[in-house]
Amino acid sequence: MKNKTIILKSRPNGVPTKNNFQFTETPMPELQQGEVLLKALYISVDPYMRGRMSDAKSYVAPYEVGKPILGGVVAEVVESKQESFRKGAVVVGTLPWQQYTIHDVRGLHAVDPEVAPLSYHLGILGMPGQTAYFGLLHIGQPKPGETVVVSGAAGAVGTVVGQIAKLKGCRVVGIAGSDEKVSYLKNELGFDEAINYKTTTDINQAVSAACPDGVDVYFDNVGGAISDAVLLALNKFGRIAICGQISFYNNTVPATGMRVEPILLRKSALMKGFIVSDYASEFGAAAKELATWLKEGKLQYRETVKEGFDQIPEAFIGLFTGENTGKQLVKVGEREG
Amino acid sequence: MKNKTIILKSRPNGVPTKNNFQFTETPMPELQQGEVLLKALYISVDPYMRGRMSDAKSYVAPYEVGKPILGGVVAEVVESKQESFRKGAVVVGTLPWQQYTIHDVRGLHAVDPEVAPLSYHLGILGMPGQTAYFGLLHIGQPKPGETVVVSGAAGAVGTVVGQIAKLKGCRVVGIAGSDEKVSYLKNELGFDEAINYKTTTDINQAVSAACPDGVDVYFDNVGGAISDAVLLALNKFGRIAICGQISFYNNTVPATGMRVEPILLRKSALMKGFIVSDYASEFGAAAKELATWLKEGKLQYRETVKEGFDQIPEAFIGLFTGENTGKQLVKVGEREG
Repeated sequence: MKNKTIILKSRPNGVPTKNNFQFTETPMPELQQGEVLLKALYISVDPYMRGRMSDAKSYVAPYEVGKPILGGVVAEVVESKQESFRKGAVVVGTLPWQQYTIHDVRGLHAVDPEVAPLSYHLGILGMPGQTAYFGLLHIGQPKPGETVVVSGAAGAVGTVVGQIAKLKGCRVVGIAGSDEKVSYLKNELGFDEAINYKTTTDINQAVSAACPDGVDVYFDNVGGAISDAVLLALNKFGRIAICGQISFYNNTVPATGMRVEPILLRKSALMKGFIVSDYASEFGAAAKELATWLKEGKLQYRETVKEGFDQIPEAFIGLFTGENTGKQLVKVGEREG
Repeated sequence: MKNKTIILKSRPNGVPTKNNFQFTETPMPELQQGEVLLKALYISVDPYMRGRMSDAKSYVAPYEVGKPILGGVVAEVVESKQESFRKGAVVVGTLPWQQYTIHDVRGLHAVDPEVAPLSYHLGILGMPGQTAYFGLLHIGQPKPGETVVVSGAAGAVGTVVGQIAKLKGCRVVGIAGSDEKVSYLKNELGFDEAINYKTTTDINQAVSAACPDGVDVYFDNVGGAISDAVLLALNKFGRIAICGQISFYNNTVPATGMRVEPILLRKSALMKGFIVSDYASEFGAAAKELATWLKEGKLQYRETVKEGFDQIPEAFIGLFTGENTGKQLVKVGEREG
């Protein structure tokens, strides 16, 4: 059986390129007692993975050069020597970018194919949806009538942040990088305002105009000049959830820029970084609430799906050039069972 | 009666100079029903007052040019046409830099001369002590065995921060600007380590060496390169209370420097600005606990007192050149009653 794997060939310097990735073929060892053979169906590409490609100390261990890249995968159990995951079951877990994987089932979660399309477990019901949920509700603590701004608004996390904020009765402003995304946010997801930062000549002025009552909560996916503009409009007792700093992931030296401490001081404001695993003990409750909102039609969800295992590097690189609207996925296999 | 006042002659550009202040003599109007005549005994000079001398938007209204400067003052009621404050009573409040003031008693608090020396109500039992209390305990939330770092450690706030952190069972590291201060922190106040940032060639290395288990709580009075060094040693789930940014008060343009957001993200860390008035509803309880610790000998307290009304501008300017150890005050009058 041919089995393609993508390994990290070299660490990116700046924005990743195809040369950082290498396709190899790995032999398939025999299935042992307690193991399952998984067939990858959907592979997730996420901005945080860029961080793991550097060898800088971070919140997750760096990928090793010469080893497979790991990420969120929805897979089907196509052979099983393990009692709790039978053949035909669908699971989600952190797995290599690889067509078939033998796994001892630690860290795998079964997925109910009836609740939602399988791919949703890599998006709105999975890591990105939960990231939006905890960052907004636990750190941002939005109150009805407050103004919530989200950057990277058209991405997998941002789209959920804005919609939950609307559910909570807030004025919601999104910042994104194309007119198509702006239109999607305003016309399909119900954002009150959206800013295309690429065509805005004065981002500070644009944020002020979109937030006439100032900013109470900022969900930050990007960092940099966009975030500075939002911070300059922050209200007293504002809350900032630092979810991503995509503008710095490709930096080769420590980033410098506007000091935020004087603003936090003047505004008695709170800024907190987080990673979704900080809230692991509450994943179950969050998934349940997200699924309920989805079923009630209170959350819209959109994916960008590339087809074919060979498309994974391109899909990943596209995250940093603003190609995707909503969650970026790659469909790599058909379900058999 | 001659009555000297200090007015803001011009807004400082950078570090304040004597030319920014002007001594004037004001006539004393007749005391009306409901008013008291106050004689200033101790006048407080504090770093935050530099912020009010700028006309930049801030958390407190700027001082007006040509008007008296306001700050914390302990005063004696020397005449009274007001029932609740009798002649001879001692009060603390926000009052002009002026020898005698007529006041309608709003915002004045009576002080018990038996509890502690009168001047303590401008320091450890007053605004600086309460600032230390709320910033450390509410934002920092130190746990036994954790490492707490405080910058501006020998100042009116920093000395209380470090001592409360010791009370809570923490390893305490202070950063200050002279060997005398370092010795005071370690030998008199019981800090575990103290760093003289002025003689340290590598502040990053000095912080690492003083904090072998990393930094869990940082109480930031200064900002800038010192704070960057502490942040680089921050542990996962670290908490940073932004109390002051004295290195930026004299800035004439918005400050730039190391981006803290990527660190907060990697460490799931919290950073929060505050001003003591955010906690106004809890002042009573805090004052009571501070007074108890003081009486039990668990808190040491030191003042630097200049003598004479004419010394106020110099005492204030000295805050920015590192002259004071502990709380800086000016004694401007003797108690009569």
